[in-house]
This record gives sequence, structure tokens and C-alpha cells, in this order.
Amino acid sequence: MKIALAQLNYHIGNFEGNTRKIIQTASKAAKQGADLVVFAELAIPGYPPRDFLEFDDFIVRCEKAAREIADAFPQIGIIIGSPVHNTSGKGKPLYNGALFLFDGKIQAFHKALLPNYDVFDEYRYFEPGNTFDLLHFKGQKIALTICEDIWDVGNNPLYTINPMELLIGQRPDLMINIAASPFNYNQAEKRKHILRENVTKYNIPLLYVNQVGAQTELLFDGGSMAFAADGHLYSSLPFFEEGLEIIDTSSLFDVKSKLDKQHIPSKMQLIHDALVMGIRDYFTKLGFSKALLGLSGGIDSAVTAALAVEALGAKNVTGLLMPSQYSSKHSVDDAVQLAKNLGMPYETIPIADLYGAFDQALKPYFEDLPFNLTEENIQARIRGVLLMAFSNKFGNILLNTSNKSEAAVGYGTLYGDMNGGLSVLGDVYKTAVFELARYINRERELIPLNSITKPPSAELRPDQLDSDSLPDYELLDEILFQYIEGRKGPNELVAAGFDKAVVNRVLKMVNTTEFKRQQTPPILRISPKAFGMGRLMPIVAKYLG
Amino acid sequence: MKIALAQLNYHIGNFEGNTRKIIQTASKAAKQGADLVVFAELAIPGYPPRDFLEFDDFIVRCEKAAREIADAFPQIGIIIGSPVHNTSGKGKPLYNGALFLFDGKIQAFHKALLPNYDVFDEYRYFEPGNTFDLLHFKGQKIALTICEDIWDVGNNPLYTINPMELLIGQRPDLMINIAASPFNYNQAEKRKHILRENVTKYNIPLLYVNQVGAQTELLFDGGSMAFAADGHLYSSLPFFEEGLEIIDTSSLFDVKSKLDKQHIPSKMQLIHDALVMGIRDYFTKLGFSKALLGLSGGIDSAVTAALAVEALGAKNVTGLLMPSQYSSKHSVDDAVQLAKNLGMPYETIPIADLYGAFDQALKPYFEDLPFNLTEENIQARIRGVLLMAFSNKFGNILLNTSNKSEAAVGYGTLYGDMNGGLSVLGDVYKTAVFELARYINRERELIPLNSITKPPSAELRPDQLDSDSLPDYELLDEILFQYIEGRKGPNELVAAGFDKAVVNRVLKMVNTTEFKRQQTPPILRISPKAFGMGRLMPIVAKYLG
Repeated sequence: MKIALAQLNYHIGNFEGNTRKIIQTASKAAKQGADLVVFAELAIPGYPPRDFLEFDDFIVRCEKAAREIADAFPQIGIIIGSPVHNTSGKGKPLYNGALFLFDGKIQAFHKALLPNYDVFDEYRYFEPGNTFDLLHFKGQKIALTICEDIWDVGNNPLYTINPMELLIGQRPDLMINIAASPFNYNQAEKRKHILRENVTKYNIPLLYVNQVGAQTELLFDGGSMAFAADGHLYSSLPFFEEGLEIIDTSSLFDVKSKLDKQHIPSKMQLIHDALVMGIRDYFTKLGFSKALLGLSGGIDSAVTAALAVEALGAKNVTGLLMPSQYSSKHSVDDAVQLAKNLGMPYETIPIADLYGAFDQALKPYFEDLPFNLTEENIQARIRGVLLMAFSNKFGNILLNTSNKSEAAVGYGTLYGDMNGGLSVLGDVYKTAVFELARYINRERELIPLNSITKPPSAELRPDQLDSDSLPDYELLDEILFQYIEGRKGPNELVAAGFDKAVVNRVLKMVNTTEFKRQQTPPILRISPKAFGMGRLMPIVAKYLG
Repeated sequence: MKIALAQLNYHIGNFEGNTRKIIQTASKAAKQGADLVVFAELAIPGYPPRDFLEFDDFIVRCEKAAREIADAFPQIGIIIGSPVHNTSGKGKPLYNGALFLFDGKIQAFHKALLPNYDVFDEYRYFEPGNTFDLLHFKGQKIALTICEDIWDVGNNPLYTINPMELLIGQRPDLMINIAASPFNYNQAEKRKHILRENVTKYNIPLLYVNQVGAQTELLFDGGSMAFAADGHLYSSLPFFEEGLEIIDTSSLFDVKSKLDKQHIPSKMQLIHDALVMGIRDYFTKLGFSKALLGLSGGIDSAVTAALAVEALGAKNVTGLLMPSQYSSKHSVDDAVQLAKNLGMPYETIPIADLYGAFDQALKPYFEDLPFNLTEENIQARIRGVLLMAFSNKFGNILLNTSNKSEAAVGYGTLYGDMNGGLSVLGDVYKTAVFELARYINRERELIPLNSITKPPSAELRPDQLDSDSLPDYELLDEILFQYIEGRKGPNELVAAGFDKAVVNRVLKMVNTTEFKRQQTPPILRISPKAFGMGRLMPIVAKYLG
């Protein structure tokens, strides 16, 4: 049997667009002789549809699209993800379904293990599947599962059942898993490991189809795979791109069949490619083409600009230089050099006069109170107003340039430099921003070396340095990583050798600045624990704060 | 047996404060002869602790606090909510537990039905309880359940089991339910109905303890109750206040025992009291006392100011009037009159000069492009900068004054009038803001009548009216309510008689402005479906957009 793996980029709620793309791909696969075409989890509505699933109208549109696809290709089998009604009268109203379309008929299989941690909230919508039957097609018995269903290879205590254990007794010939498995920089390795573990455990081939593309903050890297029965990787689809590949399943029982050495890129390349895709899809799917950002001469805006230029093209990314009286000459020079290196347009608007106007307006109230954070924030907010004015007037989207270290400790101005439609680096620690800059410069100096080597500064008062307010980034990022990604508490951090006063100070900064993070733009997620939808914290609380 | 119902206001993660309050209350109850004191669901950490639950350190602190409470009062029984380890090795690592503390020992019961819809995400953290045993204490057999466990009275198909059905066979003498049941304007009636249904179904008394107080956006109204075995309400605790009441359970089997006519306030009083509590707790629990807001002369800022004054005291609420060249004389007069009526301090900073400065700074780039939304937004953002400057300089929190209708259709300026630490009216439709204003004026004219009767306007260009851009609020709010609270799709709305073009326009406005709502402050939740944590929508999507 010939099975096509269709790794596509979907658009949430765009039934017309998704259905057209699915039908075109099925048509292409059919022409290449495929008996069965496999699409990703919840491909029909796009994943994750979130609370759109609560609208009957949305489910009706999913059903209509499924019917349209089934009618378009009655002669080949199609496996595709879509929500399915739970008609039992007990439990949640929907299942997360894998539809099997053939001969005009539609058969539904249900996801049993519903991830409900980090960025996942599937139990919000779906009842866990509780029937475990094989799919019979052209003499083959297929164990059809959905994403999380096969992620327990004996070391994942989150669930009390294991769907493949229930299916294997029915002696399937092969496994097919359809997924929407979001990217993080560890995920490609982990996913390959988990899939291979299933194959070596059950000794039958496994075909795995992931989706690709960005859905606001969630990035999907694709990397679909076919494993032969002996556990060797037979074929793999590209990362961060759509792909279609037809597998003759008979090859998957042949130990001498082709050996695919899937090349998993380096961590920095993965992060780079993921962020570029994230920017591109955000703009494309929203119907925008042009971006705008403030260029300070610092490394965060330089890296953001370089990524945006790669995603959207140099002519579509405009930089605004907004020096104040506290900006150093080299900052302006570095920003100009960056724009020239990238070939992007830029404009310069000094803000000293605007700052003076606010100073005048506020003098009657502030009188002789000393210059403090207030005045620093005013500068950042003046820049925010100018950027948003350009964004509004010229119809481009403002990119936010804050990094994860700043976002974590609240080192940024709400309604100032925290503005933007999308945060590009909000899941990249400052130390990793430096690595990313060097990766971007791997062939030639796009980011001026001076932006990489000079000490970080917000330049909001004379001779200011980030290190005046924060621990050195090497130390800060290590503590943040242990706390945010590692969920280590203060005692564990001190036991690991960190200074108690520094630990307490950093954790307090993180916990008391949650109010800022809940007003920031969506953050492209590249780590296993990003700020945003995957980290839900109360604002009003007193834990470590 | 004498059972004390302890309805308290907890502070999330404040183990020292919560434990002290719990012990003081237990002590008070013991002195009044209580055998058993009942506290709310997850009282030890405060509810909802959200992702703090993923920190071992946090759970250890819960355990320590439980031990401290158990040791402080070995002679009386205490029922209290706290997370509990799942030691089975299968399923999620925690249960949502009800601890029974007595004689220095701790016995744990587990919540079986985990709400995971709207503002609830308990399945993110907890394994559903799967053992159903009675609590035996002083010769009484108690069916001890947690909140959602008793919310299925035969018409809630969300779950496949019913804990009380499993417990009733063991012939309990009474039911105790500990809860953290958040307020909405329908909840008090619904809660009473559900509780009574349980009593009439199982024919034993029911003691119900809810928490009270605000946890960022979630408001808890208390209203704890004791029902006699025949279904009559024996006693109820106040709304929006802490309370302690001791019930002699023998009275609950007496059909002639006291009949409590719980007075559920009017919808407007409920909303008013909930919002006042929400403001007060937000400030108190964050350690702030002073608020700031912009006064436009319009109704939204007037109502917000009146609520803030009631919550924090007039001297702690400062109003900023920031008229532009487009502000009408009556707006300034109305704002001044409001401040005087409320007795709150106010300042006036005209923004024409600041606007002129931005106009000058942007002229070289905008050239002769016509005045449009850009210039409207600049005015709103200048006000945002001034308000935040006051907030930063004087250490008060900016209150956001946007209403739910505006938030729904994106009629507001990001980083301008959408700024603030807390949105007071973001869950109150414009038409309800008018009702609330009349409620606030029920005894005397606090809010100038002119602010209530004049046509709403943003006053960002000459002679602007909201009705230039939006359908009349009566119509708009009805469509929004059907769409947001009612989850009706476009076809259902048209079938219900709304004009198709208006429906499509409104739904499109809602869906395409999701990016704005994800950057707004937390919104005090008074309806069954508020924007924020209880309504999770993708930003990048094309459904009805």
C-alpha cells in the first residue's frame, strides 16, 4: 500500500483555505499513486482552535469541510484530524478525532490521551476516547492514534491507560500517528526518540505526520517521519517547510530498505529557523507584509531586525532610530550600520524635544522630585507612541524586541519598549540572543560587532548599564532557567550552589512582575517553557514575592 | 455535633498570612464550642494557585502549613482544602484535596470532578479522585466533597461519574462540600438551586463553605450555606464578606428549625459590590492603597471613579483631566463635577501642546497624509504616558476604564486608554454601565446626570460620536451578549432576527481585535463569560474575521 504523508501549514478557522489546500494535496498524492493520504491532527480547523471549539457553528463548518473532502476523493483513503461529536450523552461534547474518509464514508477514531499542561488545554474541549479499534483498509490493519496517544513509552505517569497497549493485542500491521506537536529546541530529538521507542516496542512500522507552520506563538516544525518495522528511520520530511512524501509500506518491512539520516539542525539554527517562520506566518496569516521596529544600536533590536529581514524581505522592515540625550554616539552609529548591512530602510527621530515637552507638562506636579524610573519610562513610552504612530499611519506591525531575561525580571517599560504585535525574542534569554547574533553573523557581519561586544545598556540615564540593576546575564539566565524551565524552588537553587540573596532577589523580581508579562504581545515559543499561554500565574499573590 | 463554617478571604501563596488567619479562626470557633471547623477548597495556598502548583517547593509549603494547623488544634476537627500528592505512580502528580485534621493526624479526600472550562483549568494540575469513602468523626458519617463534585444533579453531562451517587450508598449522615466557586451575577441563585437539589435528592443536611474575596480577576462572593435534611435553608453567610457561623447539626434534622431567607441582592447591587471588592482586594493584596485614573467626563471613567472611591476612600483616588482641542467644555465640567461630588483629588493637564510636539516630530514623515486613526491614537497615548508618569512617580495604580462593549469590538487605543493595572468595567457592557451609574446615583447624584444622558463620544476628533463607528449600544450589546456569553454563530444570530450585515460586521470586529484584548489588564469578572483567562482565542485565525 502506498501512503502519502502530507505535512502542511494550516490557518486556524480558514475552512476555505485549509480545505482547498487539503484537496489539492490529496489530488497530487492520488496522481502519484497513493492509496491513502495522511494529514495532521485537527488539520481541518487548524490547531489549536481553542475556544472556537465551543461554537456549534465552528463544528458544523468542520463537518462540512470533512464532507467536501470525502466527496472530492472517494477513490482514495484519507486520514485527517477534526473535532467529532460525542453522542454518548456523558462527558464533554467533543472528541479530538482522526477521520478516515473513503468511498464517501466517514469513520471516526478518538484521541484518548489529552495533553493538558504547558501550552496544551485539550481536556478543556474534549472527552478522552475510550474505544480502541483498528482501522481496516485494503487488507491492512492500522493502529491509528493521535499525537499524545503514543507518548507514553513507560516513563510518562500522566495517564492511567496506554492506547497502543490496548491496540497491539488486535495485531495491527502498522501504526499511523497524526500530530500537532509544537516545536521547542529539544523537541526534534525527543520526538524521534519517542517514535522509535514505539517501533522497537511493538515491532511494526510507524508513519507519523506532524503539522508545520506558526499559529501565533506556537511554532510547528514538521519533521514527519516513517519508521521501518525494525526501528530504522526510513524517511523524514523537512523541518519548517511543507512536504509530501509517498511511502510504499512494503519497504517498511525490509531491513535493507533505505536508511534516512534525518539531519536535526544545531540548536541555534533551529531557533533561528523557527523564529523566521514564526514572524513570516504571523504576518502572512494576518494579511500583513510590512514590519516596523525601534533600533537602539543594542543587540536585541539588531537580532530582531535581522530575523525580520529574513522573514519578510529587507524592504518590508523599517527601523526607527529614536535617540535621546542619553543615547551614546556609538548606539546611533551601530543602528545605522545594522540597517545598512541588512539593506533595510530606517528613519531617525530624536526624542529630546518630546521629552522636554513632557517634562514641562509634568513640572507643576512633579516639582523638584528627583529624576527616577518615571523619567526613564517616559522616554521609552515616547518611543512607543512614535512607533505606534508609524504602525498606524503606514499599516505595518510593530515587532517587540524584548528578550526573555528582561521579560522574566520585568526590566522593560509597559506601554513603551514592551509594545508590539509580536514578541520575537521573548523566549530567548539574553545570553542566547548573543549566540543567535553570532549565528546570524556566521557568514558575514550583518550585526555590527560592537552591538555584540559592548555592555548592554537601556541608555535611559547617563552611563546606565544593565548590570547596575541586574546580576550579570550569565548568572541571571542560569537562575532563571532553573526556576522557569526547571521549576526549581529557592531551596533547591541554593542547594545547587547559587547565592541565597541573589536567588531570592531574582525570584522576587520574576514573581512580582507577572502583571507586566500579562500585558505583553504573544511570544514566539522556542523553549519547553515560554511566558504566555504555557505559563499561567496569578498576578495577585505573595509566593516568593 | 457543632460545625463551624469559616468563610475567609485568602491570599494566594501567602502561607504565613493564610495559616495565621486559619489558626485564629479555628481558635475562635473552638472557643465557641465547635467540634469541627470547615474551611474552603484549596484554602491553604489560596485558590487558584495556578502554575505555582508545579513547584515542589510550593507543595512542601502547603504540607508544612497543614501540619502547623493540625498541630495547633489537635482537639478539634478541621476540614480544609490543600493540594495532595498522588502516590499511585499513575496519573497527574497531585490531587485537589480536602484534608481532615484531627488529633495530630491528617486524612486526605480527593476531588473527583475537575472543572476545566471557562476560568477553570484544574485538570492541568490534578488527577481526578477515584476513591469514595466517608469521613467518620464523632459518630457521624460525612460525605465530604469538593465544589464541582456535587454540581451534577442529573443535567450536567460533562462527567461520566457522580461522586455523591457513589457515596450515598454508604449511608452518610450529612454532606459537607468545600468550594471555591467564583462569582458571576447569576451564580448565587444557581448555586443555591444546585445545593438544594442535592439535599432533596439525598435527604440529608448539606453544609457548604465557599471562599470570599478577589483573586486578581476572579471574584468570590462567599454566600456559604447550611441546608436542613428536608431541603430548607437553615443558615447562610454574607456575600462579599468574611464570616464564621456555628451550626448544631441536630437542628438540621428538625423540620421546624430556623428558616433562613437568604437575601440575594439585585443584579446591579451584586455587580457593584463585586467590583468594589475586586478593586479593594487587588490593591490590598498587592500592598497598594492609592489609585489613579483619567477622567474624561464620560460615563465609564465616572463609574470607575465612583467604585474606586467606595473601595479605597476618596482621598486615595486621584483623577487626571487631560483635555485636548477636541474635548468639549461640558466634558471638563462634568469631570470636575464628578470629582467634587466624590470628594476626590484631581488635576488638569491639557494635552494640546504635547499633541503639537508629536505633530511636529512626525510631520517630516507623515507630510500631507490626512488626519486619521493615527492622530486619534496619539492623543489617547499621550494621556497614557501622563497617567503612567503619575503612577510611577507617586506609586499609585492606574485603573483602566474600558467597558466590555469597547473591549469586544476593539474600540480603544492599545497603550493609550487601554492602559492600567486593573480593568474595572471590562466585563460590563456599555448598557449595563449606564444601569450601574443609575444604581450608584440611587441616593444622590454622585455621577453628573449629564455624563449619563449625553451621547457617548471618544472626543478624539471634532464632533465625534461612538455611533459614527459602532451600532447603537442597545443593539451592539445584544449581539455581543448572544455571541460571547451565548456562543451563538452568525447563522443562529440571523435566525434570531438580527440583520445579517450588522451581525457579520460585529463578529468580525470581535474576532479581528483579539490581539488587543490579549494585551489588556486583568478584567474583574462579573459575567459567566468574561474576556481574559476564561475566553481563550487564537490571535492569528480567520474564523468570522
